[in-house]
Amino acid sequence: MKSDRIHKRLREILPPGALLTEREDVAPYETDGLTAFRRLPMAVAIPETEEQVRQILRACYEEGVPVVARGSGTGLSGGALPHESGVLLSLARFNRILHVDPLARIARVEPGVPNLAISEAVAPFGLYYAPDPSSQIACSIGGNVAENSGGVHCLKYGLTVHNILALRVLTIEGEVLEIGSEALDAPGYDFLALLTGSEGMLGVITQVTVKLLPKPERAQVIMAGFDDVKKAGAAVGAIIAAGIVPAGLEMMDKLAIHAAEDFVHAGYPLDVEAILLCELDGTEAEVEEEMEKVRGVLAAAGATRLRVAQDEAQRLRLWAGRKAAFPAVGRISPDYYCMDGTIPRKRLPEVLARIAALSREYGLAVANVFHAGDGNLHPLILYDANKPGELARAEAFGGRILEACVEAGGTITGEHGVGVEKIDQMCVQFRSKELLLFHAIKQAWDVRGLLNPGKAVPTLNRCAEFGAMHVHGGQLKFPDIPRF
Amino acid sequence: MKSDRIHKRLREILPPGALLTEREDVAPYETDGLTAFRRLPMAVAIPETEEQVRQILRACYEEGVPVVARGSGTGLSGGALPHESGVLLSLARFNRILHVDPLARIARVEPGVPNLAISEAVAPFGLYYAPDPSSQIACSIGGNVAENSGGVHCLKYGLTVHNILALRVLTIEGEVLEIGSEALDAPGYDFLALLTGSEGMLGVITQVTVKLLPKPERAQVIMAGFDDVKKAGAAVGAIIAAGIVPAGLEMMDKLAIHAAEDFVHAGYPLDVEAILLCELDGTEAEVEEEMEKVRGVLAAAGATRLRVAQDEAQRLRLWAGRKAAFPAVGRISPDYYCMDGTIPRKRLPEVLARIAALSREYGLAVANVFHAGDGNLHPLILYDANKPGELARAEAFGGRILEACVEAGGTITGEHGVGVEKIDQMCVQFRSKELLLFHAIKQAWDVRGLLNPGKAVPTLNRCAEFGAMHVHGGQLKFPDIPRF
Repeated sequence: MKSDRIHKRLREILPPGALLTEREDVAPYETDGLTAFRRLPMAVAIPETEEQVRQILRACYEEGVPVVARGSGTGLSGGALPHESGVLLSLARFNRILHVDPLARIARVEPGVPNLAISEAVAPFGLYYAPDPSSQIACSIGGNVAENSGGVHCLKYGLTVHNILALRVLTIEGEVLEIGSEALDAPGYDFLALLTGSEGMLGVITQVTVKLLPKPERAQVIMAGFDDVKKAGAAVGAIIAAGIVPAGLEMMDKLAIHAAEDFVHAGYPLDVEAILLCELDGTEAEVEEEMEKVRGVLAAAGATRLRVAQDEAQRLRLWAGRKAAFPAVGRISPDYYCMDGTIPRKRLPEVLARIAALSREYGLAVANVFHAGDGNLHPLILYDANKPGELARAEAFGGRILEACVEAGGTITGEHGVGVEKIDQMCVQFRSKELLLFHAIKQAWDVRGLLNPGKAVPTLNRCAEFGAMHVHGGQLKFPDIPRF
Repeated sequence: MKSDRIHKRLREILPPGALLTEREDVAPYETDGLTAFRRLPMAVAIPETEEQVRQILRACYEEGVPVVARGSGTGLSGGALPHESGVLLSLARFNRILHVDPLARIARVEPGVPNLAISEAVAPFGLYYAPDPSSQIACSIGGNVAENSGGVHCLKYGLTVHNILALRVLTIEGEVLEIGSEALDAPGYDFLALLTGSEGMLGVITQVTVKLLPKPERAQVIMAGFDDVKKAGAAVGAIIAAGIVPAGLEMMDKLAIHAAEDFVHAGYPLDVEAILLCELDGTEAEVEEEMEKVRGVLAAAGATRLRVAQDEAQRLRLWAGRKAAFPAVGRISPDYYCMDGTIPRKRLPEVLARIAALSREYGLAVANVFHAGDGNLHPLILYDANKPGELARAEAFGGRILEACVEAGGTITGEHGVGVEKIDQMCVQFRSKELLLFHAIKQAWDVRGLLNPGKAVPTLNRCAEFGAMHVHGGQLKFPDIPRF
């Protein structure tokens, strides 16, 4: 049997304890952060050296066995969901910070290093790594690269792709590639960007070189309450239009505010429909000057409450509510489903209204907590998995939200990736030609299709079944067979 | 004959005057900014509508005729050098600004719009487009995307890839792709980045959506003179290490200073070995605060002269010398060859010393004028094309400089692209596996290899002949023929 052969080969590559094949040992790996999907892998490999990874990949390549790489398993779209006849490749032991160069402001780290651990390691130099997903205590930098993760501060500082310089990557054949460099730009096609966000489908990362930023001298936050969600949405556009780039600009609606306030007592007003949290950072002078401007814009936009944090403790307390909003919603509903769509900022008021209408249609409440400055929505759909049909209804509702994002000129993911969760919505987002190009890219890197199969890019047949295939020129278009 | 057939088809697609086939009519297109390379195209097509472009591409695809897209022809690496049996596709008539959204801070433009024209069009809204190549009066935004162009301000504001949101692209088959969106992130592989810098080898751009930035309240420049090039190089690192991100940080060496001063009387000191120009921008308060810091860092780094521009006229005069440096060098030498390599900032002093040593070895003078903050070198090799052998010596010398950049952990291009100029150095920069992946990507997008053939990515045979192929595992490695 194929599974016997690959088990034998993996046992020769890995030391005892680094290969799990028993059901009870592989069970903890059956899901990532998207717990609605569960699947047991054929085996879990936990290598410690790049040479072991290389040999594992080579063995899987030769035997035709799928490989799913996994960092910390915090991903929210099921990108690390195992393959039932494949190897789950845990990079948890690749947890070393290899090199910090404070002068050049870069760090070279292994993929299993948690996001926050990088900032902690370079704090003595006054530096930090900017992208900060909510899960930053746990989530790994390798996973961040695979999903092109964002965070509260990516409005000003960009996504993962804007904050890395180089990757060391193994192909499925076990060849080492050095992609990018410490220098500004690279010739040839931009493989650094191609790999970032590729959800483990092109290669396995073994090193990441990240950019570091100097910690801003000052950070200050202002909270604004509004009696109307639309006004809050319009205020977001007004701040950006005033030429201000906040470090973070977040919105919470009434349901989220109440849940968070009950949970962590952040000091949010309970008599408003929405709040905005706007953080500014920079030098003392810069922050002071811009805070005055922001205050003016918010007042003009109709804010009924305005509060500037008076000290660092108050600033952290205001953020604590935002950061705890997801678990806070978890306290008021047995289950919730976190969506992640992105829209042009100016469409915020209209898309929020659309979500409210869908909420009534599906009979499920929604709490909105999101990166408003980026137009990156995170509607949390509240449901109860124990009530028959509610999970399916929540998923259908979620799909409709993503489709509304695409209709508004947006996309089906801001920072969580596609994984298995949104694979059908890819048929809405893209036309067949684009999907064919995705498949061709995949084929170029992974000719046997072994790296994380079934994720992120749907087949054209799947789209046709989903019924959402964009039809081009009146008929479903399959690949031209080159006749030349 | 094939050329008769394609001429006939193109005549059916294009109005009279939009197809040039006579030698004297196509001659003006024989070269781009890299004038050392010249070649006449079979025909020049100057379409006015996207539908015409689509039909031209379709015809060329069906007839197997190469297509080279051209913007303003200012590229410095020969990316728009015609193919002798191909169509040169001029996008000069795609010169409309289609849409400006000052609230969202974006503009949608056609590819033939000159870079500077975008900033001029949005100036009434207090906005501008950040990347500013020296040729910005003339160079087109489509060409900027094709080469991922930079400029003086890309240290703070990024390259072209960081300043665009979406592209409308035609494949060689004539299919329309919409890549990217006005929203933050896109699912699937990052085709926006893949297309940017792809030198016209994957598709033809028909629309570009760019990000706009608010014009900074204040910009100020400080000039520092040094009695030693190395000290100037070290000062660059010290400014960045101090946590300052200048809007621009440029270096000129003695030869460049004297040439520029003779030409435009910028007020540069003539008794120094190098000058740095450091521009800061932002709010009044921010600029003032950071200027004090920069002044301190420069003094500590051993600057012998320090001058802060006292008003806007002085600021512009200081920049005028830098911006005129290339033509100024053109006045002191019959010919010069502008190189474009990038290195990690900290290697600046050492690589500058290496260039000086090579200058002695080849007996050709070099003027250095460059984006020091980015580590993006622009050595200008002075030569006289009328002296037998000097052009070849200049090219050989240039090749050695690029190889020195790669050895220092850098790359063979910062912002000018590879084109035909640096195609051999691609063999030094990349291993065979990486080159094979480049070819596979190309194959996925352009199965007949008709878009700008012979540019940017060398064949493995060419690398083997060049003698610089990285050898992997003891032997030249050609593609695995998939046996599955």
